[in-house]
Amino acid sequence: MRFFALLLCTSASLIAQQNEDSLIIRKIYSYHLTESKSYENLRNLCKDVGCRLSGSKEAAKAVDWVKQAILKAGADSVFLVPCMVPHWVRGKKEKCEVYNNNKSEIFSVCALGGSIATPVTGIKTKVIEISSFEEIEKLGIEKIKGNIVFYNVSFNKEFIHTGNAYGKAVKYRSGASMAAKYGALASITKSMTTSDNDFPHTGMMKYDSLVKEKIPGFAISSMGAKKLSSLLAQNKNLEMYLYSDCKTLPDEPSYSIVGEIRGKEFPNEVIVVGGHLDSWDLGEGAHDDGAGVVQSMEVLAAFRKLGISNKRTIRCIAFMNEENGTRGGESYAELATKENKKHIAALESDMGGFSPRAIGVEAKQDTLLYYKKWQPLFEPYYVFIKQGGGGVDISKLKAVPQFSFEPDSQRYFDFHHTADDVFENVNKRELELGAATIGSFIYLLDKYGTYKK
Amino acid sequence: MRFFALLLCTSASLIAQQNEDSLIIRKIYSYHLTESKSYENLRNLCKDVGCRLSGSKEAAKAVDWVKQAILKAGADSVFLVPCMVPHWVRGKKEKCEVYNNNKSEIFSVCALGGSIATPVTGIKTKVIEISSFEEIEKLGIEKIKGNIVFYNVSFNKEFIHTGNAYGKAVKYRSGASMAAKYGALASITKSMTTSDNDFPHTGMMKYDSLVKEKIPGFAISSMGAKKLSSLLAQNKNLEMYLYSDCKTLPDEPSYSIVGEIRGKEFPNEVIVVGGHLDSWDLGEGAHDDGAGVVQSMEVLAAFRKLGISNKRTIRCIAFMNEENGTRGGESYAELATKENKKHIAALESDMGGFSPRAIGVEAKQDTLLYYKKWQPLFEPYYVFIKQGGGGVDISKLKAVPQFSFEPDSQRYFDFHHTADDVFENVNKRELELGAATIGSFIYLLDKYGTYKK
Repeated sequence: MRFFALLLCTSASLIAQQNEDSLIIRKIYSYHLTESKSYENLRNLCKDVGCRLSGSKEAAKAVDWVKQAILKAGADSVFLVPCMVPHWVRGKKEKCEVYNNNKSEIFSVCALGGSIATPVTGIKTKVIEISSFEEIEKLGIEKIKGNIVFYNVSFNKEFIHTGNAYGKAVKYRSGASMAAKYGALASITKSMTTSDNDFPHTGMMKYDSLVKEKIPGFAISSMGAKKLSSLLAQNKNLEMYLYSDCKTLPDEPSYSIVGEIRGKEFPNEVIVVGGHLDSWDLGEGAHDDGAGVVQSMEVLAAFRKLGISNKRTIRCIAFMNEENGTRGGESYAELATKENKKHIAALESDMGGFSPRAIGVEAKQDTLLYYKKWQPLFEPYYVFIKQGGGGVDISKLKAVPQFSFEPDSQRYFDFHHTADDVFENVNKRELELGAATIGSFIYLLDKYGTYKK
Repeated sequence: MRFFALLLCTSASLIAQQNEDSLIIRKIYSYHLTESKSYENLRNLCKDVGCRLSGSKEAAKAVDWVKQAILKAGADSVFLVPCMVPHWVRGKKEKCEVYNNNKSEIFSVCALGGSIATPVTGIKTKVIEISSFEEIEKLGIEKIKGNIVFYNVSFNKEFIHTGNAYGKAVKYRSGASMAAKYGALASITKSMTTSDNDFPHTGMMKYDSLVKEKIPGFAISSMGAKKLSSLLAQNKNLEMYLYSDCKTLPDEPSYSIVGEIRGKEFPNEVIVVGGHLDSWDLGEGAHDDGAGVVQSMEVLAAFRKLGISNKRTIRCIAFMNEENGTRGGESYAELATKENKKHIAALESDMGGFSPRAIGVEAKQDTLLYYKKWQPLFEPYYVFIKQGGGGVDISKLKAVPQFSFEPDSQRYFDFHHTADDVFENVNKRELELGAATIGSFIYLLDKYGTYKK
């Protein structure tokens, strides 16, 4: 009987707790939907600072901007974590022209981040369409040598989360080395996207250190890839002209920015919430990842505004150099090991400013159940707690429980790494609901701590 | 012990069943994401037919188009359900000009559906800004008479589902009668939207039969309302010129379209899945409700393509005249009472072609629990089963369990009833995921039936 009474008691207190939490979470959502600065901050970051590739002047301007904005959001203090970042520059606009039976046609392309340039006179040669690395191996040096390799690989549409389709296809963005191994002069890869439009998508490519020869890597828009493929089906001997002017300059000093509200009970326990400040040099880095940065700042602002007293120290971090190096994530993780503090959790928002769908928890089933208990609190906001989680920057914090904010992924690769990733393509309410979801989960993490065996 | 064994046994069979269902649901989603005709059908409906207000030539063309398309989707048979529909026409483009201290400025407005026209010379008078019906009563005839009443009422941003904010604010769209009661010459209402842009939103207004005088009703864009309000704050004596040319013609004959796949076990049990075919005359009726129509047709197509044998008769219905009369819903409900068949469930998709968030069930808690058991099957697709449900057209089917498809609502009122509700603003994958969610729920309804006490 005692056991039964205890159960009842626990259950009643659990309900009371959940009621209190649901009221506070409701207040957090209301704050974000009515008073939040997320949208205005994103406008400033996108329009006044603009795109901000690591090592650029704009990235330096962005550091100053975030430093001020985190203080305005209500951080007790802010500090910079230095790192040396790669400095790749695009140079003059790329060119791509296809010559087919006395006709010529311009295609939308861009150099991939980290690529070398073409010779100043460009490259003009035939194009070999490829659907997999295996196909290159099969064709061999005889067919590939002296040509441009065109990786025409589409996203697998059956994945529900488009990030999974990206994960499968993105290796072809670094296909230049494989093409070079067989003597190609350049590679051009279909853009990493679910959509059908004329924006080429940039993004990091890596050269394989085992392949001596480096050749330029390009992305072609999804519409362009479709058209090129149909032209090749009619005429295998058409020729393509490619030109790029990009180069890698010496590393530059830069910074991640950390703003914190110190914990009132356990100041030495740290919860990280962040996004990355750098962006590609096309567009304005609105969804990727201006959204994550302004949302993380507003987590602090909501705590201040609503008078939520955090037990643990909550740190909002705008990481530098996620796109092409993760140097910001690395240098912060290094700092974290040296500090006399314990990081108990880290959450990253780096999947765009779309409507919230889930909080991802990087955990095994038993651990997941601990967080799944919070799902009823999120059901009024249509948010699941599910397996998943993590982020590129926070992944450097070894052995720290990782979480991710999962917005709706269907439109992310419409904009990702393109000139169309601009402020106007972020919906105010979607951005705000994301910030509210992140803030509510951080509130629960702070209050109840992470899972302990 | 026997009870325990039975429980285990039930549980094992439940798991086996859920595994089978989860495989079929996975196939339904894959079909929609890879082979579905939803997006192409929507393109045809929006671009080849266009907007299709009840009574218009385009609405008649849409009836023919859907009839063919449902057969192509794989219906055993298709039939039309006649109804007489209102025939309101906008006529010449509306005008709104504000005269303020020797300056004049054009504002974006539109006549509200069902409104009478202004005199041919228009109306030019002062504007009284109002934030509630109570305020009109307080100001009284002395202040209102001879003026234009400007209802400047915003959506409540705190609602998570924007439809709830719409539900609270939409009464002001029919505010002309209240204004007329106090002697106003016209009313102009801030557009029903969460967004901040220059599209005026039309929509049905109704005249109060107790108020003898009818005056024209307009909508002004949300940006326009903001600007007008700030001008009025500076100068209460500014004047507005309004002109509209709309009128209501005699009712026209029209049709809802029904396509069905007969049930193999219980052909006399009917499950309805539908949307409405008519749309407002601005834009293309893409989200509202071309999306619901093409999704419902693809539910049939997926059953055919995947060889899913339905026990019950599944009817896809494209209802006519949801926007300004619900005559299609009414005439179908009338037919349903006369048929020698039993309607066991009806689901409507009329909230846009956005990413799926939930299936709404119009039911009390105990009934809801029956459907909630299916939620784990939908979790891989981020879809909740929740209280809610119904739709304007199917609401006429009395005592038939009602369900709704709930897509993400955040962007719906960016487009709703505007010139911007066009095909290009529907995302292919979001539309397809919606159709898959609807189809999967219909599959379960067909297989397991509805809740029985």
